[in-house]
Amino acid sequence: MMGSMARSSSGESVLTRAVRVLEAFSPQEPVLTVSQISRRAALPMATTVRLVEELTRHGLLARDEQRRVRIGNRLWELAQRASPVGTLRETAMQFMSDLHSVVGHSAQLGILDGQEVLFIERLIAPGAVTTVTRIGGRLPLHASSAGLVLLAHAPADLRDRVLRGPLQPYTPHTITDQRALRAALAEVRQNGFALCPGHIRPNATGISVPVRVAGRVVAALGLVVPNEEHAWSLARPLQITGMALGRALDVQAGLSQRIQPWIQP
Amino acid sequence: MMGSMARSSSGESVLTRAVRVLEAFSPQEPVLTVSQISRRAALPMATTVRLVEELTRHGLLARDEQRRVRIGNRLWELAQRASPVGTLRETAMQFMSDLHSVVGHSAQLGILDGQEVLFIERLIAPGAVTTVTRIGGRLPLHASSAGLVLLAHAPADLRDRVLRGPLQPYTPHTITDQRALRAALAEVRQNGFALCPGHIRPNATGISVPVRVAGRVVAALGLVVPNEEHAWSLARPLQITGMALGRALDVQAGLSQRIQPWIQP
Repeated sequence: MMGSMARSSSGESVLTRAVRVLEAFSPQEPVLTVSQISRRAALPMATTVRLVEELTRHGLLARDEQRRVRIGNRLWELAQRASPVGTLRETAMQFMSDLHSVVGHSAQLGILDGQEVLFIERLIAPGAVTTVTRIGGRLPLHASSAGLVLLAHAPADLRDRVLRGPLQPYTPHTITDQRALRAALAEVRQNGFALCPGHIRPNATGISVPVRVAGRVVAALGLVVPNEEHAWSLARPLQITGMALGRALDVQAGLSQRIQPWIQP
Repeated sequence: MMGSMARSSSGESVLTRAVRVLEAFSPQEPVLTVSQISRRAALPMATTVRLVEELTRHGLLARDEQRRVRIGNRLWELAQRASPVGTLRETAMQFMSDLHSVVGHSAQLGILDGQEVLFIERLIAPGAVTTVTRIGGRLPLHASSAGLVLLAHAPADLRDRVLRGPLQPYTPHTITDQRALRAALAEVRQNGFALCPGHIRPNATGISVPVRVAGRVVAALGLVVPNEEHAWSLARPLQITGMALGRALDVQAGLSQRIQPWIQP
């Protein structure tokens, strides 16, 4: 069974260890020394040196002039060029840009990945209220407006799993009660949008709508506005933009097999 | 020396073969069956099955309902979250969006990667002249306006290597002569922009400017316009945008170690 999949004495495969090396990098620390990688990936130094060498040879990592290590352009390129996320982002960005030019505020696009929202695009308004999201960042489903939209339209078994908790609070306004969450999801389905004043940060309100392709919700499009704003008034232009993006994606889906459901189990 | 790096009978490491599996996917064919992957990666079927299984377990690949395979969200996320490309794109997109709202036309951002331009962002104008570039796509340095900008400011040894050729023609207007290319690069340095009417496609003109961080050219920002347009008139707003983007990146570079030179050797 093992065949060509070599495993270390700890039973881990080379690929598992390589993924651990890649996971050592974060937006906060995108540049690491080999010994930092070794510590963070909990791998012996010799193994780390060899893995970093080989990953660098493939362009998945790169070294700077001080021999410090970072993610290589090639990894980005491999992930980008055939990823369904890339197509969705590229189309969404045009609609987000239009939305932003009409209503202002920061816009963001999230997809369901596992039990979280994965944010794949954002457009930051100058002087905007700070958001906790970033491209490639994640938020739990119960706490964010994008999460409520995705959860409201998720398969029943995922919904049940999230409802069973735990529902971690971020502020006193985060929904942490199973019954309240169930009611909020019903409201999202009924209203066509989710509004979360102060659920993640006291000073920010998130508002999100579903994006549908062939009738199926594939993403949540949202705005982050200051908590004092009359956020309700933004629901309509946001809903229209979400629908328009869905229409454009529908057309593309008809033209190409590139558009697949982005929700990965 | 081999240690934990297992090699197949052909001497290839697991990582090399895993990279070959990832490389089997392309924007034209983002969804493949395992046997298609096996053929494209030139790997035995049994090896391919095992690699696909393990890459899927790590989320680097994903399977759809018909068990066909595609690039997984996790690969995109790993590449995105700590990649210097991500930061550059996110800042650039705001300036590209402003540029687009003022002058129209499709905008794109390229970086030097090896001996090619790697396009990391683009904004497509509705009804725009078709461009051959796409996000994650590449063009040779001598033929594209972005390439001329990056080559004009590249280290002398890379410039010499490209000048020695071969310089592949795309249209009768592509620069394919060493002396003409040397003159064009001097002109780019002098004028502050590169203009390539019909160099890649007869009906399109590319125009690009350098983006500098701490005085060093890290990217080329460009527009693609119909060949009949008076493209010269776009040089000024494009130059101003390129400079403004450089200023913003300079500020970010001062604030964080995230901004690194994106040029990877």
